[in-house]
Amino acid sequence: MTDPIRIVFALFPGVTHLDFTGPHQILARLPGAIVDVASLAGGEIEADGLIFAHLKRLDQIEACDILCVPGGFGTTQAMGDEAFLGEVKRLAWSARYVTSVCTGSLVLAAAGLLEGKRAACHWAWRDQLALFGAVPDEARVVRDGRFVTGGGVTAGVDFALTLAAEIAGSAVAQAIQLAVEYAPDPPFQSGRPELAPPEVLARVRRIYDNGMDERRSAAVRAAAKLGRSEATPVLNPV
Amino acid sequence: MTDPIRIVFALFPGVTHLDFTGPHQILARLPGAIVDVASLAGGEIEADGLIFAHLKRLDQIEACDILCVPGGFGTTQAMGDEAFLGEVKRLAWSARYVTSVCTGSLVLAAAGLLEGKRAACHWAWRDQLALFGAVPDEARVVRDGRFVTGGGVTAGVDFALTLAAEIAGSAVAQAIQLAVEYAPDPPFQSGRPELAPPEVLARVRRIYDNGMDERRSAAVRAAAKLGRSEATPVLNPV
Repeated sequence: MTDPIRIVFALFPGVTHLDFTGPHQILARLPGAIVDVASLAGGEIEADGLIFAHLKRLDQIEACDILCVPGGFGTTQAMGDEAFLGEVKRLAWSARYVTSVCTGSLVLAAAGLLEGKRAACHWAWRDQLALFGAVPDEARVVRDGRFVTGGGVTAGVDFALTLAAEIAGSAVAQAIQLAVEYAPDPPFQSGRPELAPPEVLARVRRIYDNGMDERRSAAVRAAAKLGRSEATPVLNPV
Repeated sequence: MTDPIRIVFALFPGVTHLDFTGPHQILARLPGAIVDVASLAGGEIEADGLIFAHLKRLDQIEACDILCVPGGFGTTQAMGDEAFLGEVKRLAWSARYVTSVCTGSLVLAAAGLLEGKRAACHWAWRDQLALFGAVPDEARVVRDGRFVTGGGVTAGVDFALTLAAEIAGSAVAQAIQLAVEYAPDPPFQSGRPELAPPEVLARVRRIYDNGMDERRSAAVRAAAKLGRSEATPVLNPV
């Protein structure tokens, strides 16, 4: 008899869907996996044009083994949503693994969970982890004790396979990798700022710059709520 | 003014969600992208435990530039669903690109669209393309004229970036790659049968063998409907 592994993806409006569909497709295949996709209000969540329905309410979930918080532009609001952060904190309390993909680590940080911990994040937001006393780590998958965090969006697949191996052994993780034919072969090598052509990096930065002040201010406010006053003056350092 | 690019993902019950969420996350970022996620009946589709809601009905969509059919275990039924195949055929007629991920190419083949064409497919089902007169190609992304097909599940990301570059140029595709931080770094090299350790391959084959006769029979029946009589005797050749 395989022990059940209760996995919860904690969604919020404005989540990036691939941040959790990638890991979901992999972790749901773990022997014994029982997966809940939940949000504060339950029901439906829109994510980049896809609508995910019949979500549970987070407060309906008593506990889980793996808590995973994905990222997305909605983290700006999620970092300031006390009720959502409260549920994340409650489930994190007893979880064996507290995890995130992309800017989901900022939500974990805003819930006060990453102080002194190394964590991954989407490259364009990674530095904001420091506002919460977390240690930004540029690795694609970062493990610090029971905290396992992945980098931006597609890092969720590497994160999930790493966690799958940790939980069920490398043979199971490799079998899942084979089943989802994960032998990546990108047509370009442009997936990290230090790899991308300068004009490509500049193009993406221009897009992100629009609204970055607001997003950073949200992180500063969330950090201040945790009593981190040193956060306050650090607005867009270059 | 950017010309609109109308993209349709044609879903069916039992679709593998990452087959389309991966490409969706990328193609939806193309300048001018208008994305519809649709099924025969519209409404909701369950995929590996996730429920996608507010889908359009395929017959509500007049035409599109890119038609993408994902795969999944549900292709066994989809290959025999005349109404679904009819909609796929209708939309394919005028599409600039007719595409698939994973076993979605078997649906395109069952719709009579791949005769004489090279196509990709999930490795474990790839040989079934030949039943329809298509030419199985083990590449991760295969282009044959306006037909662009991807291999199993995670190949959808490589497929989508390839198509993005074709449509909007490599700078746009590279910018999307950077935005989704696609610098894959799998913890194992087990993503193709020829790479996986033999015991891992055997484990996955055992899982797939359960029900493979039924799935192959469905392909043979679908091929027979297209008048391909040579398909009939080829049951599980080894």
